[in-house]
Amino acid sequence: MECKRVAVIGATGYTGIEVVRLLLNHPSVTIEYLSANQNTGLLSEIYPHILNDDLFVISTDEAYFDNLDAVFLCLPHGQSNRLVAKIPKKVKIIDLSADFRIKNLSLYEEWYGAHKSPDLVKGAVYGLSEIHIENIKTARLVACPGCYATAVLLPLLPLLGLGIVKEEHIIIDAKSGVSGAGRSLSSENLFCEVNGSVKAYKISNHRHIPEIEQEAGLILQKGVQDIKVQFVPHLIPINRGILCSMYLNLKENYSLDDINSKLRSFYKDAPFVAINANKSINIRSVVGTNQCQIGIFLGRVENSIVVVSAIDNLLKGAAGQALQNFNIMFSFDEMTGLSNIPFYP
Amino acid sequence: MECKRVAVIGATGYTGIEVVRLLLNHPSVTIEYLSANQNTGLLSEIYPHILNDDLFVISTDEAYFDNLDAVFLCLPHGQSNRLVAKIPKKVKIIDLSADFRIKNLSLYEEWYGAHKSPDLVKGAVYGLSEIHIENIKTARLVACPGCYATAVLLPLLPLLGLGIVKEEHIIIDAKSGVSGAGRSLSSENLFCEVNGSVKAYKISNHRHIPEIEQEAGLILQKGVQDIKVQFVPHLIPINRGILCSMYLNLKENYSLDDINSKLRSFYKDAPFVAINANKSINIRSVVGTNQCQIGIFLGRVENSIVVVSAIDNLLKGAAGQALQNFNIMFSFDEMTGLSNIPFYP
Amino acid sequence: MECKRVAVIGATGYTGIEVVRLLLNHPSVTIEYLSANQNTGLLSEIYPHILNDDLFVISTDEAYFDNLDAVFLCLPHGQSNRLVAKIPKKVKIIDLSADFRIKNLSLYEEWYGAHKSPDLVKGAVYGLSEIHIENIKTARLVACPGCYATAVLLPLLPLLGLGIVKEEHIIIDAKSGVSGAGRSLSSENLFCEVNGSVKAYKISNHRHIPEIEQEAGLILQKGVQDIKVQFVPHLIPINRGILCSMYLNLKENYSLDDINSKLRSFYKDAPFVAINANKSINIRSVVGTNQCQIGIFLGRVENSIVVVSAIDNLLKGAAGQALQNFNIMFSFDEMTGLSNIPFYP
Amino acid sequence: MECKRVAVIGATGYTGIEVVRLLLNHPSVTIEYLSANQNTGLLSEIYPHILNDDLFVISTDEAYFDNLDAVFLCLPHGQSNRLVAKIPKKVKIIDLSADFRIKNLSLYEEWYGAHKSPDLVKGAVYGLSEIHIENIKTARLVACPGCYATAVLLPLLPLLGLGIVKEEHIIIDAKSGVSGAGRSLSSENLFCEVNGSVKAYKISNHRHIPEIEQEAGLILQKGVQDIKVQFVPHLIPINRGILCSMYLNLKENYSLDDINSKLRSFYKDAPFVAINANKSINIRSVVGTNQCQIGIFLGRVENSIVVVSAIDNLLKGAAGQALQNFNIMFSFDEMTGLSNIPFYP
Repeated sequence: MECKRVAVIGATGYTGIEVVRLLLNHPSVTIEYLSANQNTGLLSEIYPHILNDDLFVISTDEAYFDNLDAVFLCLPHGQSNRLVAKIPKKVKIIDLSADFRIKNLSLYEEWYGAHKSPDLVKGAVYGLSEIHIENIKTARLVACPGCYATAVLLPLLPLLGLGIVKEEHIIIDAKSGVSGAGRSLSSENLFCEVNGSVKAYKISNHRHIPEIEQEAGLILQKGVQDIKVQFVPHLIPINRGILCSMYLNLKENYSLDDINSKLRSFYKDAPFVAINANKSINIRSVVGTNQCQIGIFLGRVENSIVVVSAIDNLLKGAAGQALQNFNIMFSFDEMTGLSNIPFYP
Repeated sequence: MECKRVAVIGATGYTGIEVVRLLLNHPSVTIEYLSANQNTGLLSEIYPHILNDDLFVISTDEAYFDNLDAVFLCLPHGQSNRLVAKIPKKVKIIDLSADFRIKNLSLYEEWYGAHKSPDLVKGAVYGLSEIHIENIKTARLVACPGCYATAVLLPLLPLLGLGIVKEEHIIIDAKSGVSGAGRSLSSENLFCEVNGSVKAYKISNHRHIPEIEQEAGLILQKGVQDIKVQFVPHLIPINRGILCSMYLNLKENYSLDDINSKLRSFYKDAPFVAINANKSINIRSVVGTNQCQIGIFLGRVENSIVVVSAIDNLLKGAAGQALQNFNIMFSFDEMTGLSNIPFYP
Repeated sequence: MECKRVAVIGATGYTGIEVVRLLLNHPSVTIEYLSANQNTGLLSEIYPHILNDDLFVISTDEAYFDNLDAVFLCLPHGQSNRLVAKIPKKVKIIDLSADFRIKNLSLYEEWYGAHKSPDLVKGAVYGLSEIHIENIKTARLVACPGCYATAVLLPLLPLLGLGIVKEEHIIIDAKSGVSGAGRSLSSENLFCEVNGSVKAYKISNHRHIPEIEQEAGLILQKGVQDIKVQFVPHLIPINRGILCSMYLNLKENYSLDDINSKLRSFYKDAPFVAINANKSINIRSVVGTNQCQIGIFLGRVENSIVVVSAIDNLLKGAAGQALQNFNIMFSFDEMTGLSNIPFYP
Repeated sequence: MECKRVAVIGATGYTGIEVVRLLLNHPSVTIEYLSANQNTGLLSEIYPHILNDDLFVISTDEAYFDNLDAVFLCLPHGQSNRLVAKIPKKVKIIDLSADFRIKNLSLYEEWYGAHKSPDLVKGAVYGLSEIHIENIKTARLVACPGCYATAVLLPLLPLLGLGIVKEEHIIIDAKSGVSGAGRSLSSENLFCEVNGSVKAYKISNHRHIPEIEQEAGLILQKGVQDIKVQFVPHLIPINRGILCSMYLNLKENYSLDDINSKLRSFYKDAPFVAINANKSINIRSVVGTNQCQIGIFLGRVENSIVVVSAIDNLLKGAAGQALQNFNIMFSFDEMTGLSNIPFYP
């Protein structure tokens, strides 16, 4: 198949370098250029694990779009929505920032500030690949979901949509590795501050909440303001990975087997989602992969279940899902460049 | 004040060695002997961080009790309740196993198997120091609570007892360091298996559940079978510490300030419990101390709160609380030997 | 190219599972079976990061060799040399144990005990791929080097062989992740024992010393007993990787540039060896790859240099080099199945 | 004994907060004030592990010295030597920076830049407590040694001074935790960059080299320019601790027992130095203590030894040795406030 010409804007952050790695492994991609705001020059000098000596990073100021088929935007929110206006219509955009995830502009503004390209929001597709695959196929701009949102929504949406669990009392306790915070400098992410500790942070006010509520509302055909989920993230001393434990109440007295087969049926065509009843879920099993592993368990309280999901925050939670969306948008097999077996330990 | 003569049975596990360390720092204690099942000999050869060259560990088979004031039992459940029968009545017992925590013998049997000293269960006092301090003062046998139970009950009991939160829909998501599993060999606790991962385990069936439900029932004047809490522990790649995030529903529309001052008032005489509204809670701040730090936060859903508590599982969750109980039992100041400032980072 | 039929004996240790992963990615390999001493059954239940549901592990007692092209032996030393006798001559053997590394049988016995297949030792080829590639091509039995030996010898052998450094005063300070110790149970490898610490171990008596001295002697055309290297390994709280810092004395007053170009010239056809002067070397850059990164630096003392090398102990130090040797033995491109870019961080 | 009034300048870095902790535990100290350049306010809000609610940090601009007995300077090099000029002569100074360690002003300038208080250098005492205890007793300004220098010099100086080892071919391979780099922001110290890796850095040009060579020269009665040691530090993913492996050559054919008893005799009055032959040395055994543990081993090469030393870089390598020096300067028992047993694991 003909190679697609792509560029990666913001290529030297943790998400950007992961997009670059995946694209280098993709058989039908030509990287036109990489760009960054600050870390320009030879990529192998910025990241010594990169051995290719022919990869250069140009300044994002010099980014061009003329002969591209697609561009990956790995920028902070607020920068993506500024840059998008400059990109010609014929270039497909895979945006990894939060800028085009929230459909409701005033809700976006409440959590992120004023939007710079409000007219493009409506046409953007929320890129949770398994759920919105049909819209992604024809989308011009795909807004890849937040890492926490991906880990939460993959099990939660079918459980809600199939009428298995109640929309009230949804409790989500998430644990994330430190790379979720990116490579920018913050004393909170210094080794000595993180190592040997665990902390809860942004209790009830993390920015991934509105996208979780938006998508939950959508599948229930309700407004985003009608759904409230309790979400608390925790910082864990690991580099990669998210584990979400969700505490849910059943609408009816389903058995675990029922739920398991309903979920498996829902995801029967999804190569990156694995569901099991009573199977221990851990982060290590998904690190380095685009997989979402989901375990379902009976709760101790009647008619309740516990659902545990795990993803690699930089892959299924960011760069991997971005490439999966790229594959969908350009009619490649969904797994192209994403079918590796991870190493252990 | 006159020194008390004590022995430590099971002195070479992680809990035992921590009891030994605290006793060596205690100004009014004479260690009569240390014992262990297997690791006998010079303590400084078993644990090179111990510099005293005059501490020997004898075999537990050779344990004697005649001239002791108190004995600390740092044994696995099932071993404590066998040994206790051999100890003369005049010797006070501080038991760190699970054997005397559960009042209901059939409930004990359900979770742990048959009890070997059932007649001693009734007289034992559940040693959650701040809650049962009056009974601990005169107890002969104190059953120190489980580490998770301590982290859960310190905030939960007053919230239930003061009528602030509902007893339904109590959800507890706990994260623990690896020392909670002790020093015994298990492939699950090998460095390479734990490092870089997080896992949920014993979902809805961890052995600390019955003691949590027993104590919650007690403060609500209900039977243990009338209370069900959803409890899920997670293993985290750190050595020490527990962080519990609890998701609770208010009985009335209390403000955070209300709750904060009610809790602070409840614990006004408790030197090891610190309560704050909207203060970030992390494990590192309590490692090396006997403190329980508690943070209370508004939930996203109306009339809900999130309560986060942190303890050092080997101190307030085991050896520290054991020494605190020893202090209470022998009329020492509660903080004797426990008032250090921890190091950071 | 026609697929080669292979089996992996000892497939469930850390080295074995890594061989399996690499073979699954290899385009010209059919896995005939996997075997293990104890962990038999569905591989995805033993290792949940394995998603293939069609990989079974049989008992090593049931191992057969009739229709195989090659067998990978991932067994402890002492077991390999027993099993090898049962394997038909037409099956090529890639042995990852220490059993066929040492040519001198009495030296082997001194470090490892009596040899069970002494007659096969002479024909075995020491599988340091870059050095013995010509002999590996035609070998029937390749003995893959120890992980430390690989990290040491790749820079050391050309430095000695080209007459750049003296054979006296060779000092090697090595740091290794914990997976080097395998997955077997040992209290020394428990998470809490390793985390937060570093220790020197087996000072001057690690079993990789004789193979280092054998190969150094060989390149200098001296006997193994004429070379003595000072080697001290250290255990580091990471899963994977070895970093060796070597302190060497120059025979003549070479410049760093001289040495750099001589080494680069020596390894000009070696795709897995990267050499740089004054480039910081770290473990993370090689984890997940078959690379050996080597940095050379001037020492503070006149006519001395410091050489730092890094490998992934389970890849270039074990399974990766084993597959590289397999490729060489069966005339595949050396990089087949080994050319991935690793992820970061 | 009468309390001494002290201040801590630079109280909120990792070294400063450790000095504060030790002073709070010291029975004969009154903290007059703490100061910092930036992090001013309530100390318990800057460091939540501090439970005292009455400790405030003022701006270093507001520092005063009139009624002090001593001041601890926990400032970066270059700042200490500026501030020292403002401190009245009657106030004793314990400086933890590098500014007064190097006696030779041009050597200082070569490694650190121009000195701001050159006239005070001569009177300063290099505060390696065990070696310079007599001079420390009467010193007005004590320059506490660098962390690496402490770990190196405690074993090295007597080995040189007693004529046991040669001064040529001294090779020191050091491994340090991340807190040695302080709490300042640097992308190199981010959790994700350090975790899972080891790197060699500042090969042959670390700033602790000149103080090591100065002290080695002093004990050999040679000039600093006559001694050259090969020193390479490595960064390890732990918070605290240094392990140094030193490769040394004997002047005569001493037995390990000889060396052991000579060293033990040299340090017979030193409560913080423990020496053993063939005893495994690790970092965990000294974390949280002011101890230096030293192990001596035979080398593989004739007439060579390997010496391994371990310290807590923030205690014996910084704040602990500073307090030890304070005790010596004010005639307190050397161990006052420093005799704790550390916790494990």
